[in-house]
Amino acid sequence: MDDGVQSRLRAVSTATISMQLLKRGIRAVSMAGVAPLRRGFPRIAGPAYTLRFLPFREDLFDVAKIGDPESSQRRAIEEAPAGSVLVIETHGATDTGTLGDILALRLKVRGVEGVVTDGAVRDAAGVLAVDYPVFAGGVAAPASYNGLVDGGHQLDISCGGVTVRPGDAVVADDDGAIVIPADLAAEVAEAGWEQERLERFIAREVARGRSIVGVYPPNDETRAAYRAWVDAGEPED
Amino acid sequence: MDDGVQSRLRAVSTATISMQLLKRGIRAVSMAGVAPLRRGFPRIAGPAYTLRFLPFREDLFDVAKIGDPESSQRRAIEEAPAGSVLVIETHGATDTGTLGDILALRLKVRGVEGVVTDGAVRDAAGVLAVDYPVFAGGVAAPASYNGLVDGGHQLDISCGGVTVRPGDAVVADDDGAIVIPADLAAEVAEAGWEQERLERFIAREVARGRSIVGVYPPNDETRAAYRAWVDAGEPED
Amino acid sequence: MDDGVQSRLRAVSTATISMQLLKRGIRAVSMAGVAPLRRGFPRIAGPAYTLRFLPFREDLFDVAKIGDPESSQRRAIEEAPAGSVLVIETHGATDTGTLGDILALRLKVRGVEGVVTDGAVRDAAGVLAVDYPVFAGGVAAPASYNGLVDGGHQLDISCGGVTVRPGDAVVADDDGAIVIPADLAAEVAEAGWEQERLERFIAREVARGRSIVGVYPPNDETRAAYRAWVDAGEPED
Amino acid sequence: MDDGVQSRLRAVSTATISMQLLKRGIRAVSMAGVAPLRRGFPRIAGPAYTLRFLPFREDLFDVAKIGDPESSQRRAIEEAPAGSVLVIETHGATDTGTLGDILALRLKVRGVEGVVTDGAVRDAAGVLAVDYPVFAGGVAAPASYNGLVDGGHQLDISCGGVTVRPGDAVVADDDGAIVIPADLAAEVAEAGWEQERLERFIAREVARGRSIVGVYPPNDETRAAYRAWVDAGEPED
Amino acid sequence: MDDGVQSRLRAVSTATISMQLLKRGIRAVSMAGVAPLRRGFPRIAGPAYTLRFLPFREDLFDVAKIGDPESSQRRAIEEAPAGSVLVIETHGATDTGTLGDILALRLKVRGVEGVVTDGAVRDAAGVLAVDYPVFAGGVAAPASYNGLVDGGHQLDISCGGVTVRPGDAVVADDDGAIVIPADLAAEVAEAGWEQERLERFIAREVARGRSIVGVYPPNDETRAAYRAWVDAGEPED
Amino acid sequence: MDDGVQSRLRAVSTATISMQLLKRGIRAVSMAGVAPLRRGFPRIAGPAYTLRFLPFREDLFDVAKIGDPESSQRRAIEEAPAGSVLVIETHGATDTGTLGDILALRLKVRGVEGVVTDGAVRDAAGVLAVDYPVFAGGVAAPASYNGLVDGGHQLDISCGGVTVRPGDAVVADDDGAIVIPADLAAEVAEAGWEQERLERFIAREVARGRSIVGVYPPNDETRAAYRAWVDAGEPED
Repeated sequence: MDDGVQSRLRAVSTATISMQLLKRGIRAVSMAGVAPLRRGFPRIAGPAYTLRFLPFREDLFDVAKIGDPESSQRRAIEEAPAGSVLVIETHGATDTGTLGDILALRLKVRGVEGVVTDGAVRDAAGVLAVDYPVFAGGVAAPASYNGLVDGGHQLDISCGGVTVRPGDAVVADDDGAIVIPADLAAEVAEAGWEQERLERFIAREVARGRSIVGVYPPNDETRAAYRAWVDAGEPED
Repeated sequence: MDDGVQSRLRAVSTATISMQLLKRGIRAVSMAGVAPLRRGFPRIAGPAYTLRFLPFREDLFDVAKIGDPESSQRRAIEEAPAGSVLVIETHGATDTGTLGDILALRLKVRGVEGVVTDGAVRDAAGVLAVDYPVFAGGVAAPASYNGLVDGGHQLDISCGGVTVRPGDAVVADDDGAIVIPADLAAEVAEAGWEQERLERFIAREVARGRSIVGVYPPNDETRAAYRAWVDAGEPED
Repeated sequence: MDDGVQSRLRAVSTATISMQLLKRGIRAVSMAGVAPLRRGFPRIAGPAYTLRFLPFREDLFDVAKIGDPESSQRRAIEEAPAGSVLVIETHGATDTGTLGDILALRLKVRGVEGVVTDGAVRDAAGVLAVDYPVFAGGVAAPASYNGLVDGGHQLDISCGGVTVRPGDAVVADDDGAIVIPADLAAEVAEAGWEQERLERFIAREVARGRSIVGVYPPNDETRAAYRAWVDAGEPED
Repeated sequence: MDDGVQSRLRAVSTATISMQLLKRGIRAVSMAGVAPLRRGFPRIAGPAYTLRFLPFREDLFDVAKIGDPESSQRRAIEEAPAGSVLVIETHGATDTGTLGDILALRLKVRGVEGVVTDGAVRDAAGVLAVDYPVFAGGVAAPASYNGLVDGGHQLDISCGGVTVRPGDAVVADDDGAIVIPADLAAEVAEAGWEQERLERFIAREVARGRSIVGVYPPNDETRAAYRAWVDAGEPED
Repeated sequence: MDDGVQSRLRAVSTATISMQLLKRGIRAVSMAGVAPLRRGFPRIAGPAYTLRFLPFREDLFDVAKIGDPESSQRRAIEEAPAGSVLVIETHGATDTGTLGDILALRLKVRGVEGVVTDGAVRDAAGVLAVDYPVFAGGVAAPASYNGLVDGGHQLDISCGGVTVRPGDAVVADDDGAIVIPADLAAEVAEAGWEQERLERFIAREVARGRSIVGVYPPNDETRAAYRAWVDAGEPED
Repeated sequence: MDDGVQSRLRAVSTATISMQLLKRGIRAVSMAGVAPLRRGFPRIAGPAYTLRFLPFREDLFDVAKIGDPESSQRRAIEEAPAGSVLVIETHGATDTGTLGDILALRLKVRGVEGVVTDGAVRDAAGVLAVDYPVFAGGVAAPASYNGLVDGGHQLDISCGGVTVRPGDAVVADDDGAIVIPADLAAEVAEAGWEQERLERFIAREVARGRSIVGVYPPNDETRAAYRAWVDAGEPED
């Protein structure tokens, strides 16, 4: 992902991106049930690095292999590139943590942008202490070994009911996490940035007491006033 | 709704109102899954103004009509009276936002008491920045157009599994949102206010180490002590 | 429960305890959907005192019996020993509160360690004001009488899909609540305490930029370094 | 339960009984998700004998105790009286069978009226071959030992979200299973029997082309005609 | 609805209609969880007549009004035109019956095409005895008065998560129920009829052992053979 | 899979196999929500051939590619070996059909043992007419293209919450579908066959009126009688 695109995506809300995708006929992009571990993380954006778990089965579990560096989970922790978003499929297993504080710390040190999963995170207090942006389907004490087995990495996955492919753009903020098809990322970032500037102007008008009629969405007159405001350097008031 | 009743309802918790309704044989009034966007909003109370969405269907959607001022949503934003509570039915569509920061700002400017919905709110950070009391089934990035179509306004609706009719009293606080049948609002507000005064006295006794037996609920002796406390001006200690 | 064991359990996270139980072949111990009323309560740990509700049935409800001191709920409030954890089964009735601020205050005064339930708590603002640690399936305004009837106390129960027997150790923190079979409590507390000391060392290494390979889980070299660190008095740096 | 009452209850549909209970203010009696293993079993009715399972926990399971005659399940199979209905609580564990063909056969031989559970039945083909009336939340291959442990017998239980006490009347047919508070059984049986006779008359009128207005529910004229029809010996036509 | 269109729709499966709508960009038309009361009813098709229930609330219920001919339910039973499909919204209340055998009989006598609901039907044995085509979300003993109140009729509704408007075409068979926007009904009926003729030919080829490659979907050669088969009068063999 | 093993597995119920696996410490093998399209199919057993769908996303759908022979679905239809069981992951998408009558017919012609999916089947009437054994999570009219996209084939998958790997043994009957780890298939088949012979003897005893105590499970005396019965050629009576 181009650095400029990534910066722009970090500056545009998932709400705005979602609207830009809707206008392009793309709806099925918002991950159900995925929320930030706490409100107010900086927005994250980057290409998806995917990790997949499968349901626990006794014969596929070996207690001696806990923490095996060859497992997909451990390889993802060490191999997901700096700037990427680690996206984890669990088939909605919110009763099992997919990572805890030490792995979150390692991802932070390695410069990975953040984690998005429809499963749970464990050691929530520790992860918050590390202050690493994690967006998950819940919080749970048990480790992945309690309810999941290795399902591979860098595969196409489903997360929160949404298909994510390695390299798709993923953006997450207080509204949750969405995926942007890779080839739309630049265009959506730009259009979203412009939409948000317009909405700042509109919010200013609404705050002054104007009705939304003719303002949101803007009619020609409002658009002209917006253009003048932009030309004037977007004055605070 | 009478101003005095509205003030009283703002001063009585939904927990207390629920108990007063239970004593009158009314149970089915608490909206499942509806929670404040953040803890600690001032309690809201007012007559319901209702808005209804229906599930998305491709032939009922026209991208050119996004933000149409004649839509039920936009009319509700401009027409819900100051002091009313905007209650929104979505059939539990928590993956789609029913309003965002600009519409919340407009409602705030217009003096609408707050919003209650079993759907989601979008642009959560923006709505919190506006500091407008919203009680919802969740948070989601996509706009209503992503998953909902117009279902009318000022109809009887279902919100959180509870029937709400225009003009019913709706109260919401950190425990969630409940509806009070319009003709019981004044009586329940008064009885609730009295119940909470009694409970402040009881809490004072329990804090001093008294068992709940004979105190909560109060026996004759406790009731007499309560009366004396009220007559003494409800001293802090 | 031995005081030393209880102290140790209060010092070990549910994530760590869960891993210690997993290593002993015990997986089915984490209560689904049970979360702290707010983040950051001190961790609670103690032997379970159990309370059970059953679904509401009109003929089993008598409005005159609200608050009956002979009910299982009220007896539990007065009889659960200091240091015990009150665990409440509701069959997942998250639309009905099992206790509110006055009962929480009474439990606090009595020295009961905290409350764990798969049902809801009501009067959340009041319970938070009392600052009593409650772990619940949700928040709801209605009282237990709205949707539940007496189901007994000090029985084996199911809470959050987990079997809890009177006297089992229950621990709860920001990751949720887990049960430890009574006869494993001491052993797990000790092993967990040791595991967390090791993980503090590992986190220190990872913070310094080391890969997790060979560190987490530790190989012989890392284990030796850990031993040296322990022998040196666990220096901060 | 009086034999006459039991016979009457076997002759009255759960739909009719539910309406008779509703008219007496009792609504919370129909077990959600409980259905006959196949359509068309003879309706069953009798006093409840209750059995309770709790969620599986590894330390409470002993492979050597499979089929232990002292378990609550096996005692229930041998001790539930002829004519009683065995009602089994599983907290909705529809992925685990609570009994199979051999136990069903034993219950049949012993004259137990039938089984009602919110869990699953296993060996469905075998149970159907035995032709024993079972009403369950589903069908599943695994035995109870796969996901459940002993939770006692002849306790008050919850089945399908409804409280059932030993001795309550339980009736089940193609519409599912309902409970009747013990002291209402005789009265409801009688009133239900009368209601169904009236509805046979009404159905006859409707089949002849009459509007439901004035007929269902019946006005005075229709009631008079009904009386005449009864006095005439309820002629087929 | 034109009689010819209605006849054609009765002859085309919901699977085929769904594919025809998909090819026209319409996906959100299949009602989740709605199934025939038994397999093998003749397929029903007709314009929707809508009925809406809302959740039960004690103050909106009057036992004396049970069966009130002025209620929306009773008016729908008497007023839905012959040939129409009665579609009933319950917000997924599968624990409450929306109609039973007598009302089904009346609808049959009046020539109403059938019933589709996301709620339950009661008196299943009786409705099956009447042999009236009902497609529902489940079976339950209690009457609508047990859990629902009047929500109006001939409104736009949501049924099984799909928006249905009065006059939309509704088709139901063993695969469930779908809605066709009114202005697409004729076109879809025709195209669906043609698709099914083609698929009969394809099935004939596949039964003879041909691979689906080039056959399903058909390539030019297969299309030519199909044309020849049609021209030859669609010989059985 | 060895032919003898496959024959044995077809002769042993999933209930019995599940018990044999439980005795070997394997529990997580029964697919939740997967049921036969109708009761009474011959039991199917064979090595898994896996197919995976992912959630629909607009940019991954091309209407011109419907039926593309290079898609994983079509390749699975043509490539799954005779005798194998086609197992399809949909993440529980029961509102979308994964195959219909023509593809079922092709699988039948090709000798594929049957289909198991946690998604839906469409054209249920047609599939039943073909009389091909399908075990699914439901029935729905829409085609896979309505809600799913290609997710690959012959991958490890999750079906009904159970991990299935290509080559694992899958068995399905009226109790649903289970997976047997490949290397346990022969042993479990043999032990299951023996268990069922014993249970036939036990059922004979129970039918004659014997208590289950000492019989089920059998004590030494019963085991001796069983041995004698086997030695006598398993006489009917």
